[in-house]
Amino acid sequence: MRQAGRYLPEYRKIRAKVDFLTLCKSPELAAEVTIQPVDILGVDAAILFSDILIPIEKMGLKLRFYEKKGPKFSNPIRTQKDADKLKIINPKEDVPYVLETIRILRKALNVPLIGFSGAPFTAATYMIEGGSSKNFLKTKQIIYNDPLLFTSLMGKITQTTIDYLCAQIEAGAQAVQLFDSWAGALSPSDYEVAAFPYAKKVIEALRPLGVPIIYFVNDCPGVLSIAAGSGADVIGVDWRVDMAEAVRKVGQTITVQGNLDPCVLFSSKNYIKDMALDVIEKGKGARAHIFNLGHGVLPETPPENVKTLVKVVHEAY
Amino acid sequence: MRQAGRYLPEYRKIRAKVDFLTLCKSPELAAEVTIQPVDILGVDAAILFSDILIPIEKMGLKLRFYEKKGPKFSNPIRTQKDADKLKIINPKEDVPYVLETIRILRKALNVPLIGFSGAPFTAATYMIEGGSSKNFLKTKQIIYNDPLLFTSLMGKITQTTIDYLCAQIEAGAQAVQLFDSWAGALSPSDYEVAAFPYAKKVIEALRPLGVPIIYFVNDCPGVLSIAAGSGADVIGVDWRVDMAEAVRKVGQTITVQGNLDPCVLFSSKNYIKDMALDVIEKGKGARAHIFNLGHGVLPETPPENVKTLVKVVHEAY
Repeated sequence: MRQAGRYLPEYRKIRAKVDFLTLCKSPELAAEVTIQPVDILGVDAAILFSDILIPIEKMGLKLRFYEKKGPKFSNPIRTQKDADKLKIINPKEDVPYVLETIRILRKALNVPLIGFSGAPFTAATYMIEGGSSKNFLKTKQIIYNDPLLFTSLMGKITQTTIDYLCAQIEAGAQAVQLFDSWAGALSPSDYEVAAFPYAKKVIEALRPLGVPIIYFVNDCPGVLSIAAGSGADVIGVDWRVDMAEAVRKVGQTITVQGNLDPCVLFSSKNYIKDMALDVIEKGKGARAHIFNLGHGVLPETPPENVKTLVKVVHEAY
Repeated sequence: MRQAGRYLPEYRKIRAKVDFLTLCKSPELAAEVTIQPVDILGVDAAILFSDILIPIEKMGLKLRFYEKKGPKFSNPIRTQKDADKLKIINPKEDVPYVLETIRILRKALNVPLIGFSGAPFTAATYMIEGGSSKNFLKTKQIIYNDPLLFTSLMGKITQTTIDYLCAQIEAGAQAVQLFDSWAGALSPSDYEVAAFPYAKKVIEALRPLGVPIIYFVNDCPGVLSIAAGSGADVIGVDWRVDMAEAVRKVGQTITVQGNLDPCVLFSSKNYIKDMALDVIEKGKGARAHIFNLGHGVLPETPPENVKTLVKVVHEAY
């Protein structure tokens, strides 16, 4: 999960100088905040500091971030004409700063670097809704009522995602993570048609590049059995599923990543330890288990508690 | 699910005259909007028009509804002192308008009337957060860090819920539904400690009154196996679980209610029919299946499409 962020005073210091999008697009600064949690917390891998909307913007959407309301696109995709105008990005030309950040990081880091992208369905929700959404009604309306538009849009997003992650790997990312943050808003039958095939296609296309592929599915319990067939090496799960059940659903050929509730980091050291050990114990049934939070670190999290968690996990293995 | 609402022009006509809370507290008007979907749509039961915050307000919270931001309590519960001030409601004195609405409805209706309440955990989230919430951090902090406060608060809420639903049954409600709208925000282990026991206690207390008890759990897939042990006659499920899997998890001794995605009502008549028949087909494995949406009807839903759905379901059985 996003390891850098507002919970670190060191991050806030940099963000006081530049806005969020500028930070994502400034390789030296983006590399610096990527490294922060490795140095400060002692985590075992770094995840590229960026945002899942960066490649989407370059497909032709006008992006703005608002402090309170989050990201907004002023020209959401609602018609075939809108979709026809979108382009498949050329990462070297369109997002050179992301690749440069990766190159800087590979020289600076002594832990593995994970690149990432939004999964195609999650990217589509932002493009169709124009931002975050409560019920994803506009996205679902297109899935139900205009499957031709939906598949043509997903085709372009999927190809962009493949090219974007290939370029990240080429630049030096040693693993990649695909975030399907909104997949859990779909019924399992909708997920199977509108999200899963596109994530699978990205994973299949990246397979020959030989790096581990992590597929994170948020609000996963209803769709996890389907997601397990994506071909990913690792399935990341949120805290809404019991880790023992996640292991059963994912099976013995796939590694599981997760899944402590980020809110647990607002409790005592002893409570954090007990809850982390419970996740670790339940993860023992898996082929392998990568300990992680079930979602991103919340902005108000005390950094001391994140350090405690990292220590507890290191001692447990 | 809430059958009356903004999607009906007949409802909007009444709401143009009175605010939401006044509508909930005016028996003649509340009865009128309760009856609307029965007359207009032809559904097989009526669900009392009210709001889950009505009894909470009477426990001692100051409630206001805002058109855009939803409900807000200006004095949320954060300390033992806050909780100590709360009272267990006396329904006949504190919410006589709810009981009067039920009495009017029993005379006017020719279909069964379902009473309802928020489940204790869901009620607690509103009381602690002071409104709706994105991550329920303040609620979880109390669960983790102040279990004595949490259990004393839950004790009062649980007793209020029991007394409130008993009074509804006494006034004439022929079934009751307990809405655990936010249970799915908890990890299964937190659900088992912080939500499930209190819902179960309410259900056990109502059991001697002899009316069917429905327990609706939103975002249910991760906790459904636990919820199945609540003692409820019927478990209501949202659309995030496949109906066939819900039937397997709930077992052969409990009826399942649900679970068409409310967004499907924004598609064509044929698509609505296909999706409804899929849910019906998968529900055939259950002891019994009560067809329903997986959540409330969305405000912009075309009433014609709700009528189509009712017709499709009636023809299928």
